[in-house]
Amino acid sequence: MADTATKTKENSLLGLKELSAGDIVSILDRAAYWEASFPKQTDTLHGKFIANMFFENSTRTRFSFEMAQKRLGAQVMNFAAAASSVQKGESVYDTVRTLESTGVDAGVIRLKPIGLLAEIAQKIKMPLINAGDGNNEHPTQALLDLYTMRKHFGEIRGLTVSIIGDINHSRVARSNLWALTKLGAKVQFCAPETMKAPDLAGLAPYVSIDEAIRADVVMMLRVQLERHEQGLMTTAEEYRANYGLTVERMHAMAKHAIIMHPAPINRDVEIDDELVEHEKSKIFEQMSNGVPIRMAVVERALS
Amino acid sequence: MADTATKTKENSLLGLKELSAGDIVSILDRAAYWEASFPKQTDTLHGKFIANMFFENSTRTRFSFEMAQKRLGAQVMNFAAAASSVQKGESVYDTVRTLESTGVDAGVIRLKPIGLLAEIAQKIKMPLINAGDGNNEHPTQALLDLYTMRKHFGEIRGLTVSIIGDINHSRVARSNLWALTKLGAKVQFCAPETMKAPDLAGLAPYVSIDEAIRADVVMMLRVQLERHEQGLMTTAEEYRANYGLTVERMHAMAKHAIIMHPAPINRDVEIDDELVEHEKSKIFEQMSNGVPIRMAVVERALS
Amino acid sequence: MADTATKTKENSLLGLKELSAGDIVSILDRAAYWEASFPKQTDTLHGKFIANMFFENSTRTRFSFEMAQKRLGAQVMNFAAAASSVQKGESVYDTVRTLESTGVDAGVIRLKPIGLLAEIAQKIKMPLINAGDGNNEHPTQALLDLYTMRKHFGEIRGLTVSIIGDINHSRVARSNLWALTKLGAKVQFCAPETMKAPDLAGLAPYVSIDEAIRADVVMMLRVQLERHEQGLMTTAEEYRANYGLTVERMHAMAKHAIIMHPAPINRDVEIDDELVEHEKSKIFEQMSNGVPIRMAVVERALS
Repeated sequence: MADTATKTKENSLLGLKELSAGDIVSILDRAAYWEASFPKQTDTLHGKFIANMFFENSTRTRFSFEMAQKRLGAQVMNFAAAASSVQKGESVYDTVRTLESTGVDAGVIRLKPIGLLAEIAQKIKMPLINAGDGNNEHPTQALLDLYTMRKHFGEIRGLTVSIIGDINHSRVARSNLWALTKLGAKVQFCAPETMKAPDLAGLAPYVSIDEAIRADVVMMLRVQLERHEQGLMTTAEEYRANYGLTVERMHAMAKHAIIMHPAPINRDVEIDDELVEHEKSKIFEQMSNGVPIRMAVVERALS
Repeated sequence: MADTATKTKENSLLGLKELSAGDIVSILDRAAYWEASFPKQTDTLHGKFIANMFFENSTRTRFSFEMAQKRLGAQVMNFAAAASSVQKGESVYDTVRTLESTGVDAGVIRLKPIGLLAEIAQKIKMPLINAGDGNNEHPTQALLDLYTMRKHFGEIRGLTVSIIGDINHSRVARSNLWALTKLGAKVQFCAPETMKAPDLAGLAPYVSIDEAIRADVVMMLRVQLERHEQGLMTTAEEYRANYGLTVERMHAMAKHAIIMHPAPINRDVEIDDELVEHEKSKIFEQMSNGVPIRMAVVERALS
Repeated sequence: MADTATKTKENSLLGLKELSAGDIVSILDRAAYWEASFPKQTDTLHGKFIANMFFENSTRTRFSFEMAQKRLGAQVMNFAAAASSVQKGESVYDTVRTLESTGVDAGVIRLKPIGLLAEIAQKIKMPLINAGDGNNEHPTQALLDLYTMRKHFGEIRGLTVSIIGDINHSRVARSNLWALTKLGAKVQFCAPETMKAPDLAGLAPYVSIDEAIRADVVMMLRVQLERHEQGLMTTAEEYRANYGLTVERMHAMAKHAIIMHPAPINRDVEIDDELVEHEKSKIFEQMSNGVPIRMAVVERALS
């Protein structure tokens, strides 16, 4: 039991908040190795079974994990539950425990209820990789973001990173905040009042949009306007005008600065259509970098 | 044509009612072999294509079959149809026939309409494995139940097994009744009037809940209260009070007795939350045992 | 960039309208090779990743492609989007571009919006295979239809092929028209006024149902009556009476003639139930032929 708990702790990836700077760097380095040698298919994880357990809809994340797992030679088992069919906390646990019982070696998990992942991880023996839990963490997204920054700038220490949008509901913002801070970058947020995160107060300053776009990295978040119907800004046009990365604002960015976005994108809401594939944009490169990052994380979970 | 029909009959697994005790035992024995040697991956079914055709939603059963198939080295093709898109009997047949036409070697099938599987099996040439048809049979579930009992008690002959809950709608109860009886166990049911099965009258006695829990095996069935809204008992509380395995009732069980449940579980309805992972409970072990059982059944279908 | 564009043009299969007769024949010949040698599994595409991107529901087509891909030894990545979640043209492009970014080698794509595939193919670098785009083309379906005809009649030149049903909404009709015409067959349509295709006017004559059934090949299309509620014929009975292949009409077919249907079938609407597996019917053989055809097409995309 003690052994198991230790094993889980060592191999799981529940969040970046708990990870040391050294651990983060070693994942980035291993991803660089995988990207350099980019194998069609290795036997690294031959005979290992990995369950992708998505209790919340996802396209790209599941696809990216599956690509990583298959390149490592693992057997991939996909499980997706409509939010409706698995509603109660117990049910999610029962399902994970069931899948574990079939002999799965590791699980990738995405779910909505806040706090549930931590609770499940306590009771499950196989290593778990967080693919997004509520608004808490999305560690592999932040790792691929850091990887993309390091690739572009050489190092992360000393960078200023602006994260713009719905900070409060964003697990991407939280995971990036923890990891970037540990690695010596300066994080600043930019958001309307209704999208600020009370739990992060004091951890990163809020700046104006004009200041935000002068950073080294301008990271836009997907805005889900349907969530904010009761708020002050109800239309895509207003949001774009006040917080969007417009072509005009892009021109005020530093020459060396880059644009990032975790996707999926609302074109012409948080970012102008013609900027998505602009030379400053790393958006699709982020996607590409997700595969070696997830290879490193999945390999780590099973080593 | 005659050859084909023979081939299907020999290799398909449509139900346990038609299977001999010897066939059942040989499946259990082969599962024990697979469990003992539990291979990461064999080449046993290399180059074989198996279609998992689920016309009724399933998580665990499909997952368990897929795990078994992949461990045997087969190629797995998943097909799931929302109940809405394939409604008529003919459509299910056309779909199965279509998938067969692509060169699939065997099919695992789950469907709702009563009697349809038998009808389809007549017309299809590839071996079929029943993964649940209406309230008729769920043979691999009963086989894994028997396997679990045999593992715990050494042999099945002489055991008393209580099956408690909605017998009438339960294919698990029917498959267990046929198989347990053939192997010399005594089966008894416990259910409210509205959940008794007219077609099974006289085949197993109905006993009180107090008597039921004194058996060697106490098998709880998932109750679907939404089905019984018009019935006498409408609430989860009432059901639990009258037919649930509560902690109190567990204390009245024999020392050597075990708790079983085919899952998914309604915690605190048919079984108390804290009993699910109690030392008497075999619930997650049943899940584990499902994999070697399905390896044996899938291998048999293709041999 | 120029290289890439060339590469796409050579290897993609967006439609048969642009393909030469020689190219079509060489695909049919390669399919014959695959059918003859029908391998359990080859290493032809070992280490290649193929994404099946279905933005419109499909069962058989995805299943058939997956079977073909797996027989060729490729890694298969499935992506299915409910029509609701990806609605706007940009989103489909973003998704395809995202999946491409993960390192996929080729994509099979099905989508609804007319003209969108051509637009996406311009911007995407990996080879794309059209698995059905709006009412425009469904090239692998027509290829397997031609393959089936050639297998039965020895050659396509000189055949008369009647396509009966909702020509206007049929991508199958269009792809068959282009390919059959190039290979020297005579195509004729039969359809009620409301189902005629304005864009095909003059390319194939419309004939009466009595004349249509005297062709060498009688190809019935699936009718979707829900689309035509406002039209002249509202009931399945009326449609069957006027345009269905009834048993009576089958008796008026030539002795050597065959019945085809791309499926799924509405039994007793466009074709009588007892004709589906009649000796004249090639319907399930069409399905079987889909696998070697798709092996040839997928192999071609990646060669």
